[in-house]
Amino acid sequence: MTLDIGVVGTGMMGQDHVQRLATSVPRARVVAVSDVNVEQAKRVGERVDARVYSDGHDLIGDDQVQAVLIASPGFTHEELTLACIAADKPVLCEKPLAPTIDACVRVLAAEATRPRRLVQVGFMRRYDDGFRAMKDGLDGGQVGEALLLHCRHRNPTVPPGFTSDMMITDSVVHDIDVTRWLLGQEIVAATVFKPRPSSKAPEGLQDPQLVLLETAEGMLVDVESFVSCQFGYDIRYELVGETGTISLGEEPGLQVRQQGRHHGPIPADWRERFGASYQRELQEWVTGALRGEITGPSAWDGYATTAVAEAAVESLTGGGRIAVELVDRPAFYA
Amino acid sequence: MTLDIGVVGTGMMGQDHVQRLATSVPRARVVAVSDVNVEQAKRVGERVDARVYSDGHDLIGDDQVQAVLIASPGFTHEELTLACIAADKPVLCEKPLAPTIDACVRVLAAEATRPRRLVQVGFMRRYDDGFRAMKDGLDGGQVGEALLLHCRHRNPTVPPGFTSDMMITDSVVHDIDVTRWLLGQEIVAATVFKPRPSSKAPEGLQDPQLVLLETAEGMLVDVESFVSCQFGYDIRYELVGETGTISLGEEPGLQVRQQGRHHGPIPADWRERFGASYQRELQEWVTGALRGEITGPSAWDGYATTAVAEAAVESLTGGGRIAVELVDRPAFYA
Amino acid sequence: MTLDIGVVGTGMMGQDHVQRLATSVPRARVVAVSDVNVEQAKRVGERVDARVYSDGHDLIGDDQVQAVLIASPGFTHEELTLACIAADKPVLCEKPLAPTIDACVRVLAAEATRPRRLVQVGFMRRYDDGFRAMKDGLDGGQVGEALLLHCRHRNPTVPPGFTSDMMITDSVVHDIDVTRWLLGQEIVAATVFKPRPSSKAPEGLQDPQLVLLETAEGMLVDVESFVSCQFGYDIRYELVGETGTISLGEEPGLQVRQQGRHHGPIPADWRERFGASYQRELQEWVTGALRGEITGPSAWDGYATTAVAEAAVESLTGGGRIAVELVDRPAFYA
Amino acid sequence: MTLDIGVVGTGMMGQDHVQRLATSVPRARVVAVSDVNVEQAKRVGERVDARVYSDGHDLIGDDQVQAVLIASPGFTHEELTLACIAADKPVLCEKPLAPTIDACVRVLAAEATRPRRLVQVGFMRRYDDGFRAMKDGLDGGQVGEALLLHCRHRNPTVPPGFTSDMMITDSVVHDIDVTRWLLGQEIVAATVFKPRPSSKAPEGLQDPQLVLLETAEGMLVDVESFVSCQFGYDIRYELVGETGTISLGEEPGLQVRQQGRHHGPIPADWRERFGASYQRELQEWVTGALRGEITGPSAWDGYATTAVAEAAVESLTGGGRIAVELVDRPAFYA
Repeated sequence: MTLDIGVVGTGMMGQDHVQRLATSVPRARVVAVSDVNVEQAKRVGERVDARVYSDGHDLIGDDQVQAVLIASPGFTHEELTLACIAADKPVLCEKPLAPTIDACVRVLAAEATRPRRLVQVGFMRRYDDGFRAMKDGLDGGQVGEALLLHCRHRNPTVPPGFTSDMMITDSVVHDIDVTRWLLGQEIVAATVFKPRPSSKAPEGLQDPQLVLLETAEGMLVDVESFVSCQFGYDIRYELVGETGTISLGEEPGLQVRQQGRHHGPIPADWRERFGASYQRELQEWVTGALRGEITGPSAWDGYATTAVAEAAVESLTGGGRIAVELVDRPAFYA
Repeated sequence: MTLDIGVVGTGMMGQDHVQRLATSVPRARVVAVSDVNVEQAKRVGERVDARVYSDGHDLIGDDQVQAVLIASPGFTHEELTLACIAADKPVLCEKPLAPTIDACVRVLAAEATRPRRLVQVGFMRRYDDGFRAMKDGLDGGQVGEALLLHCRHRNPTVPPGFTSDMMITDSVVHDIDVTRWLLGQEIVAATVFKPRPSSKAPEGLQDPQLVLLETAEGMLVDVESFVSCQFGYDIRYELVGETGTISLGEEPGLQVRQQGRHHGPIPADWRERFGASYQRELQEWVTGALRGEITGPSAWDGYATTAVAEAAVESLTGGGRIAVELVDRPAFYA
Repeated sequence: MTLDIGVVGTGMMGQDHVQRLATSVPRARVVAVSDVNVEQAKRVGERVDARVYSDGHDLIGDDQVQAVLIASPGFTHEELTLACIAADKPVLCEKPLAPTIDACVRVLAAEATRPRRLVQVGFMRRYDDGFRAMKDGLDGGQVGEALLLHCRHRNPTVPPGFTSDMMITDSVVHDIDVTRWLLGQEIVAATVFKPRPSSKAPEGLQDPQLVLLETAEGMLVDVESFVSCQFGYDIRYELVGETGTISLGEEPGLQVRQQGRHHGPIPADWRERFGASYQRELQEWVTGALRGEITGPSAWDGYATTAVAEAAVESLTGGGRIAVELVDRPAFYA
Repeated sequence: MTLDIGVVGTGMMGQDHVQRLATSVPRARVVAVSDVNVEQAKRVGERVDARVYSDGHDLIGDDQVQAVLIASPGFTHEELTLACIAADKPVLCEKPLAPTIDACVRVLAAEATRPRRLVQVGFMRRYDDGFRAMKDGLDGGQVGEALLLHCRHRNPTVPPGFTSDMMITDSVVHDIDVTRWLLGQEIVAATVFKPRPSSKAPEGLQDPQLVLLETAEGMLVDVESFVSCQFGYDIRYELVGETGTISLGEEPGLQVRQQGRHHGPIPADWRERFGASYQRELQEWVTGALRGEITGPSAWDGYATTAVAEAAVESLTGGGRIAVELVDRPAFYA
């Protein structure tokens, strides 16, 4: 049995997903792709012998398409996700679920009218071996109750047009999701601190930022977000519990001794660091969809993460601590 | 397009392969399994909806079977591999290619009569990210010419009936293959040194052993083989070049600080350490077989490795340095 | 030529210093000790054949005493240091220089009347190989300009009576000094954040704390202070520069592989971690004093550190960001 | 109480010792130095205000000299050590005790006529924190009985005139001493294996070498000696016990993340790596000598090490396994 998938958006992320589904995920088949840039969609579609659409809604309406992966720009996510829900088709929506809190709430409302979950949001760190081992260690009582979480999110550089807000909505959003998932509780406030920007950062970018998150049970989470760090893609965590700490991010593997130094590699980018996580995310999604079960990050996760990110952006802009107010969690997502 | 595969042998290794082919390797389908223990074969076959045989030859003769994976005991490998060659079907044979040098030579002769390679031997370390990075570093000139290679092969324990010879033919055989592949040259002599055995080793087992290999261009390779090491599955290499060294095997990932110690895990067994390598090995084999190209470890690699292992066993038994004499390498394997 | 030293205070710290001076610091001789607990002072004095006083002022007045080391409780530091200045004797005063900002200012004023520096404050991290290498790396341009500094200060446990304030005045004070010394600038504000306390912390202790420091040039420093961490004495730093980071605190040395884990030790306490730093601090102080030159952390460093610590305590108590206002730096300390 | 020391030999090693004794070892005073290069001896002597001799025997005869440190070339060690014994003065003789087995035996015989030990040999690795911790771990049963020991001894380069024999007598001799001390037993045979020499090694130097040592109780020790390794001074050990391993030599301290790499330093030379060990060796020797007790590596250690090194040199020259035959151990060294 094979899952016939349509992929909306054939930019870099969409192309990666198409390639992955075609070559590395058993029982997945890409039968349709769409993009407003229809020439690009054609090139991508040809490689996997898929039908090509210029409009995502047509793809969603294609009878052969059993499940949809949305990799188009964030502002399109709400209406495409709602269309998938209306068509009763499982949808894996890349982050963010929707760009505003209100849009997310509309998705929650729509999905809650269905008998079962259809929406999954693309927070792929939950599929990483290291993050899973950290959660297993915490849940297994290895270091007692959690107290603090230190996060580092470093990128070598960013493309032109990348803004200070996007450092939160594109990068810190992962740390927000990891915090909620790892600690098993909501975030109730966010504060952004602004050090002197790096001279290597693009003009006008507040980079790095130090984001402080507070959880419902009083844990503190500090996130360094630094997207012009020059040296590599460097994702590191230290969870501090009552009796010990668990760290993630020590690069392993090869050690070279050379020219007075012992050294090892740092990943170049997220593809290298999280390639295996993306593959596992898709594999578990395909397997689940074929069984009629969506178990990955939910629309509620997408909503709560967006709400925290929005608070952080407000703190970045206006300063100070911004409380996060969530709507009541529907029983549907219990 | 899908590759229809028959798996001969449904013991632990065979079951792992069936499971992997069924759930993690795109475009692979297990259509037949066989085992002399036909009840076991039935249980395994049922899970993947495959036909069941008690005799591997019948499986090889099954018209639907396009390619064969041999995971039965070593003494059956020669005749099964020869049958696959006769049937013109690609075959992935678990190590060893055959238990004796003469048997290996017969396989070489049979395969050389075909227009293209059909046989691949299951040396899966070549598919490991770390080993590939070590080879890339060496081939890229990162540490100059190779001079020495230090290998550690440690198992926590072995099952009853495991013999001193098997420490070479089952374990060191991997280091022999890695040496030949990494350094790109043949091994010309082997000497086994025998320290006082561990009191934790089964009665009568010469464990650990220290194996010294000499290559055609004068490099020295020392292999510690220790299969009762108690503490974990610990595979480590250090390649010493003219200007630096490359090490492999530092466990990464999670670091825990707890009770006066910082610590991290060591893999429990080869499944944990090399699971990803097995998957990639199968994936590349399936992809290649569908294109009609077998590019993995060849029958020549299987032959040469067996010849070195046999020399090492002779040294283990009778002592001293044993020279390895290989037949001329056929142009077929150039 | 030998420096004849008097040590005021023969508690644990004083005894350590006496022992160190007597056995490990060439050209140092302890000729007098004092303590209000005169029986304790006698026991300590006997070991090194030193005169014994119950009053530190008498020791300072002893003609044979050429230099004074103050290891008595903090509230005695001001008047003892002033007495040393009045007697024109070099003094190494354990931190804090004095318990209040005003008291520190009085010491600054008194010392500034002398022709040369007499006062050194016991911030011994500046004498640690690792901290020096981190500073050398930064000053040498290895990672560009500094932007952020992450500090971890973890103790397994604290003695009864240890208060939340003392977590700042006893522990974070070291991070304050390291920040000023490493980054070469003053701290202008402090904010203390309070996560849920550990259930392993003594009743009523706000432990851990997260302290945010802001420097004059806009760098941000976050300090985790956690004195009931249970697992060891764990001091770790990561300095984030514009082109890279420098980390300190990865435990080295021995690696043990055992029972499914690779592990190594974490120091048990500050004596183990910083023993060599204390020795070098004393050695450089003795050598300098014999030459008439005091070059270690100055009274100004003692004052500025106390001012920042006082701001942090105010934030801990009343909440919010507390600005640090320093008096103008006297030319004497330029 | 101060120990008045005479230092014979003012080359690089002698100068280091004079400097160390003068500035870092309490209760030590260098009162005399000697060298056949009397101009050099004068320059060194002036710095510490010591008398200067051209002949070591005159220095030994100097009434003020209470103890002697011999840092002159190896061929002078026998007669100088014998002179110290005759004068009943404690002597710390740099390795080797004497260049031949027979010469060592003569020293043993001479010392055994005295009421107590006078001779210590300069094997300073026994004073290193890491080596001591490894021995503590082994003796404390942390990894069960020892089975194998892997040693790496790497130098970046060697001075002109350095010979293949000297790789054993200057470098491997330390591994021989560590083996005997760590495992607490004698070495009974040595075999040297010769890989293809590095093209970076001086013409004619057999570099690297792989030395195999066998102990009385059947443990095997392999030593990589590589003195043209180019990249740094790299001393690493792994002890393999019945239930685990203990490794030494992972460089710690600072970690830099920069330009796609995480890296840390490797020591440049033995001064950097073992500076603290030399200091502790001298400190314990001085303290012991003042008490009349010499407890460091004995003349017997010097003899046994020389005997093993001589066997290894014989194997290097003529090939094959060379058995080591020791004289009976005198009760004096029990």
